[in-house]
Amino acid sequence: MISIALDAMGGDFAPGLVVDGAVKAARESNGQYHIVLCGPKGQVEDELKRLGYEGDAISVVDAPEIVAMDEHPTEVLRKKQNSGLVTCVALQKKGLVQASVSAGNSGAMMASCLMILGRTTENFARPPIACAIPTRKGRIVLVDAGANVDEKAPVLVDFALAGSVFAECYLGIQNPKVGLLNMGEEEKKGPTVIQEAYQLLKTAPVNFIGNIEGRDLLAGVADVVVCSGYTGNVVLKMIEGFYELHHDLFGSIDTPAGRQFDEMWDYRATGGALLIGLKGTGIIAHGRSDAKAVEQAIKVAYQFALNKIPEKVGEKLTGIK
Amino acid sequence: MISIALDAMGGDFAPGLVVDGAVKAARESNGQYHIVLCGPKGQVEDELKRLGYEGDAISVVDAPEIVAMDEHPTEVLRKKQNSGLVTCVALQKKGLVQASVSAGNSGAMMASCLMILGRTTENFARPPIACAIPTRKGRIVLVDAGANVDEKAPVLVDFALAGSVFAECYLGIQNPKVGLLNMGEEEKKGPTVIQEAYQLLKTAPVNFIGNIEGRDLLAGVADVVVCSGYTGNVVLKMIEGFYELHHDLFGSIDTPAGRQFDEMWDYRATGGALLIGLKGTGIIAHGRSDAKAVEQAIKVAYQFALNKIPEKVGEKLTGIK
Repeated sequence: MISIALDAMGGDFAPGLVVDGAVKAARESNGQYHIVLCGPKGQVEDELKRLGYEGDAISVVDAPEIVAMDEHPTEVLRKKQNSGLVTCVALQKKGLVQASVSAGNSGAMMASCLMILGRTTENFARPPIACAIPTRKGRIVLVDAGANVDEKAPVLVDFALAGSVFAECYLGIQNPKVGLLNMGEEEKKGPTVIQEAYQLLKTAPVNFIGNIEGRDLLAGVADVVVCSGYTGNVVLKMIEGFYELHHDLFGSIDTPAGRQFDEMWDYRATGGALLIGLKGTGIIAHGRSDAKAVEQAIKVAYQFALNKIPEKVGEKLTGIK
Repeated sequence: MISIALDAMGGDFAPGLVVDGAVKAARESNGQYHIVLCGPKGQVEDELKRLGYEGDAISVVDAPEIVAMDEHPTEVLRKKQNSGLVTCVALQKKGLVQASVSAGNSGAMMASCLMILGRTTENFARPPIACAIPTRKGRIVLVDAGANVDEKAPVLVDFALAGSVFAECYLGIQNPKVGLLNMGEEEKKGPTVIQEAYQLLKTAPVNFIGNIEGRDLLAGVADVVVCSGYTGNVVLKMIEGFYELHHDLFGSIDTPAGRQFDEMWDYRATGGALLIGLKGTGIIAHGRSDAKAVEQAIKVAYQFALNKIPEKVGEKLTGIK
């Protein structure tokens, strides 16, 4: 049995929709996974009562402290040990759960996973978020989707390695094509750090196909798209915006293409993104997660933990670095 | 009469589709504008013959040298004075034409406009590309859409001023809302340079509404979106990619929303983007421009020149800086 810790107070609609999502996931668990809700016990139990959940696929661990969205990550780690967010990861470190999920302060979630779970490879300085995003050709890996800022060129190369290994282990893509997100195809285009990364990627142990542009990204030209966490986050949020715009203008289109679009492009279907290069499954869910997104994040966490994706990624990265 | 110089050899489909676009625009000129095609005379005239154009709304100026897409901008200026690209801008400097359009090497076009036409304000260091992009609410200004790299915070503030003034003069938006593209709404989020720009924008003479994310950008939350040229180019190309994806999946949707989407979101409708802060109308068209896009770029150039947008923007910027 795999247990998944969920930060009950993380996200814009916590605890209501987070607990709602947990209940939805619990009702489909079929004994495969157990959910541990971490948050102020009374409040969380009230939500469970409101939703009429009396099953045994959810338990509650009291974690009364609240993490604000703008709190500094290391401050959270130091001063909010009894928050839902930190409690999740601490339970995981003790082996009581096999994955942690939070839709709260993503910097704090990242710092907690990094400091409490630890890296798989000490040479791997800054764990990125790898996110499976939709494209015209199918899902590809966007890395970093928002964990880091101010990356130097060697860090971008680490992202390429991490994304490449993740695409293999999670999406089953052999020898994934790695593209560097840039403002032109030419080697000498773009910011200095991107040009430097280009040169390093030429000899890195990945299948580097050169620069790609935003249009190519959506066309699915690369299996792995490498960029800074800042740019990756803009890309991710634009995909979300496109989906919403499409729905706003056209609603659900009842054709095979329309159904495929709804299934692939709805950001809630992604559920959450994995921090790569860590000892264990730490999932960062969208701050705007509704019940469906939380449910999906739990299921994604289950899949990652069940298939030991972080361990497999870690092994491969250790072999490369 | 307004004359517009067009780089006949600029873009992926030059000279064929560029001349084709010129002919299309010429046939709709109604004596409002004249087009000066700059390129290898024989080759350009052959294209005109092929297209059966014998009207007097187009003339040809011989400019036999060819600019490659990966040539260094200042090298082009120094060594390719007889290229179509440089010839366009040189004709404009002499007052023989009132606007220049190129779908070729955008760095070279920018450098040519900057060095030959000159800045409206010497305090305005790095002219950005301002591009009117579609959103859910209508067109907004993206600045910089790809002219610059490695911008420091004060340059981003200049982009905000330029974009704000451009939104007023071109889109007629009073006191436009200026958003800083970031990976979160909080002041302390994002790369150092973005955080620094945030602080400077608080007291800058623009209607700064704070950070916005990729999703907000598409929702039309801001009238002006400020970001680095690199990020702006990724945003622009993603909008293009999304339009193509949508068409690929759904074709043209014959509803009011579908027709509005096709009209607004087709990147070819934009035609080209204006370099801001220069003495005159320099238009950078998309490298992938087909005949329709070139035609539109000419019409956009005509509108900019007719309405003296660069001059109005220049006056306002001089007043602020």
